[in-house]
Amino acid sequence: MALRGGLPTESGFVGVEGVRLVEEALRSGCPIHAVLFSESGRRHQDRLGSLIDRSEMAFPTLRTTDRLFEGLADTEHPQGVAALVKPRETSFDELVRTPESACAPLLVVLAGVQDPGNVGTILRTASAFGATGAVTAASGISGTANPYSPKALRASAGVALHLPILAGMSLAILLTQFKVAGIQTLASSAGDTNDPDQKVAGAAKSESPLLAPWQVDWCQPIALLVGNEGSGLPEEVERSADARVRIPMARGVESLNAAAAAAVLFYEAARQRSSVRTPGVVQTLGGPRSPERP
Amino acid sequence: MALRGGLPTESGFVGVEGVRLVEEALRSGCPIHAVLFSESGRRHQDRLGSLIDRSEMAFPTLRTTDRLFEGLADTEHPQGVAALVKPRETSFDELVRTPESACAPLLVVLAGVQDPGNVGTILRTASAFGATGAVTAASGISGTANPYSPKALRASAGVALHLPILAGMSLAILLTQFKVAGIQTLASSAGDTNDPDQKVAGAAKSESPLLAPWQVDWCQPIALLVGNEGSGLPEEVERSADARVRIPMARGVESLNAAAAAAVLFYEAARQRSSVRTPGVVQTLGGPRSPERP
Repeated sequence: MALRGGLPTESGFVGVEGVRLVEEALRSGCPIHAVLFSESGRRHQDRLGSLIDRSEMAFPTLRTTDRLFEGLADTEHPQGVAALVKPRETSFDELVRTPESACAPLLVVLAGVQDPGNVGTILRTASAFGATGAVTAASGISGTANPYSPKALRASAGVALHLPILAGMSLAILLTQFKVAGIQTLASSAGDTNDPDQKVAGAAKSESPLLAPWQVDWCQPIALLVGNEGSGLPEEVERSADARVRIPMARGVESLNAAAAAAVLFYEAARQRSSVRTPGVVQTLGGPRSPERP
Repeated sequence: MALRGGLPTESGFVGVEGVRLVEEALRSGCPIHAVLFSESGRRHQDRLGSLIDRSEMAFPTLRTTDRLFEGLADTEHPQGVAALVKPRETSFDELVRTPESACAPLLVVLAGVQDPGNVGTILRTASAFGATGAVTAASGISGTANPYSPKALRASAGVALHLPILAGMSLAILLTQFKVAGIQTLASSAGDTNDPDQKVAGAAKSESPLLAPWQVDWCQPIALLVGNEGSGLPEEVERSADARVRIPMARGVESLNAAAAAAVLFYEAARQRSSVRTPGVVQTLGGPRSPERP
């Protein structure tokens, strides 16, 4: 049982480590192969006990020495608790089906996001704002970090175990499949123009339209494509997507980091999808109108 | 000339270091006391030359050895370029005046934000989305990191030199001054309820209303109060603000980090303020309607 690496074993199990992630794994409903406590990790057994002792949980609880655990662990000061868990499996068909919880699928496609911390944070943020699934794909020469690696799992706070994720897809095939399935593809664009309105007007040719986040109808079935931290999405992907989206910002300001940009885009999706349920009323703060400004 | 610390000297000058920040300082229109090049830093003189040689720039260009520069520098591998610059001064009256660039003042009040990196990132993000000024204030026992410290300046990418900032205010006095000036105060709230709609209905008592970001009218004169990374704003501040705002997220998900939360809130402000200028049309992507979903 190796916890390092986080790559699924042949049987599809991944190692998760630390009280919080093991707790998430136990709550997730994913199949558990085993839970492991080191000598000093046993103090956490009380907190996890009620989750482990449920009758449907038919897996062994193993014990090991602190020294052996440290040899297996990915973190420097391990808490002495780990589990082997099988992440939720999903198919493309399942991914593009409208779930009960949402008006339409809202997918995030990570295409060339190389930092495992960014992969985890984007998954967590997307899920927090109602994303219904995720895909990891290679993009040009750059792959996407494994969402089940220890660092990505920690950054996702265990979301990678709950959210349906289709891993290691080919981007070209994926775009075709989305077209067939009626999923609109939206390329997150980080080019050098800061005024999407202008660009929309000027973008004739064969380029896909460039929209501000609020110009997108997020209540449609949508897959948001997020590219590499440095180089973004390949040009041909931006061109073949149904539209491009860019967060308008003041001149001279660099773009937001990957996690903040994802937060803004999925917030906008959540805002529009929420206003379908409960129309958002723009309120004046604090009752009486504020005095006229000079 | 000490570059460490970033605290203004008695004359109000702060040290900025590195080609990019010195370039920002030279472009900012802020008074410059001197520019300093080390031996190896002189290779950057070409890039900065056109900015330094303007006739209105009447400051000395100093030279030093690499060893002496390393002793002064805050970074481990200094680029050998530094400047002493006087940040833009501002008064409360100037801060609450409606600038030409905006429909109304949009201020960010950092109250107890302790990490200089967060202070810089929040200033940069706020400015990118059209904030017109900032205030740093102490909150309870926790002060706010100095926006002119080297780490904050780097994280702000020099925005701290452009944006009008009122530093070291008392939060109690500030809230009173805002009330008198007709600026609505909005407390960024990170409590444990995830459904602002519910809370709004239930929040009778003397509490200020709890709104989702899209329920706030951001076209008013607004000051957004951002609290400590761990403990948020003091309760009495949340209560005395005109309203509280919380980003609704799915159950079980921890809150966004300070920078991502600021990005979402100021994005919402920019969205509403932009739609006043150019009404935002919600478009369907890619022309023809997407096929009906099963």
